[in-house]
Amino acid sequence: MDQIVFKPIGIIHTPFTNREGMPIQPSGAEGVRGTVEIAPEFAAGLKDLDGFSYIMLIYHFHLSSGYELEVVPFMDDTPRGVFATRAPKRPNGIGVSVVKLLKVEGNVLEVEDLDVIDGTPLLDIKPFVPDIDNREGGSSGWLSGKAMKMRTKKSDGRFR
Amino acid sequence: MDQIVFKPIGIIHTPFTNREGMPIQPSGAEGVRGTVEIAPEFAAGLKDLDGFSYIMLIYHFHLSSGYELEVVPFMDDTPRGVFATRAPKRPNGIGVSVVKLLKVEGNVLEVEDLDVIDGTPLLDIKPFVPDIDNREGGSSGWLSGKAMKMRTKKSDGRFR
Repeated sequence: MDQIVFKPIGIIHTPFTNREGMPIQPSGAEGVRGTVEIAPEFAAGLKDLDGFSYIMLIYHFHLSSGYELEVVPFMDDTPRGVFATRAPKRPNGIGVSVVKLLKVEGNVLEVEDLDVIDGTPLLDIKPFVPDIDNREGGSSGWLSGKAMKMRTKKSDGRFR
Repeated sequence: MDQIVFKPIGIIHTPFTNREGMPIQPSGAEGVRGTVEIAPEFAAGLKDLDGFSYIMLIYHFHLSSGYELEVVPFMDDTPRGVFATRAPKRPNGIGVSVVKLLKVEGNVLEVEDLDVIDGTPLLDIKPFVPDIDNREGGSSGWLSGKAMKMRTKKSDGRFR
């Protein structure tokens, strides 16, 4: 299949400069503030974004290279299929985080609940709409019952 | 900033062969079934995925080329900043849909609530976990109060 080429539209700035000891999900990064700096050429695309309380950031796991199809995720001690995890080392290193949008000033967004490392290249932003994006019930597989743990669990060096 | 190169891990097969008249969100595609065919070399990464009721598909809007920073979205008649919409014509054509996972058989997933066109190249799969991925309250900007309309609105030819 053909290769697909993307180019970052901006950079995510966060307090995390080390891949170890980071929150592993936005729910574990409550109150962590940072900024999303959009390249000036794309700033006009931010119009109307300030009306949304939550936005989805899509970014590149730029520090991870290569991948394995089974990984032992931060939340477990059993190998899991990589697509049943959110581990950063994946065939295509795409990360997704839904964060709180505090303010839009020109080409800079102030956001909260950031679980990504400083300097992460941003690929896209989409509005998050609870009325259509939330899902209720169902099973969460090996992650069932682990939501509380995910709030406090920190990363370690396993996905270099 | 550097270019980022991805390679599809599979193909999404759906009943939609025409960009016009499609549902514009998974919530408008209730009951629409299709399959996600993973390239055999990545099939081992699907282990444990069958425990999840909902999964996030990340894919390439391969039929859209170019972009504009302001677009009139399907749900509105006012131009909006492209990052405040989910229009397929965007600087990086990345789409995200959370769908119901019905079954995993080898390298093929049976899924429901598909709002993508047949033949869409798949980039990644992640588990969706309501306990950590749902968000409550807040504002949904220009989309406030339009969730019901989004369930029935169909696409037209505007994002070729």
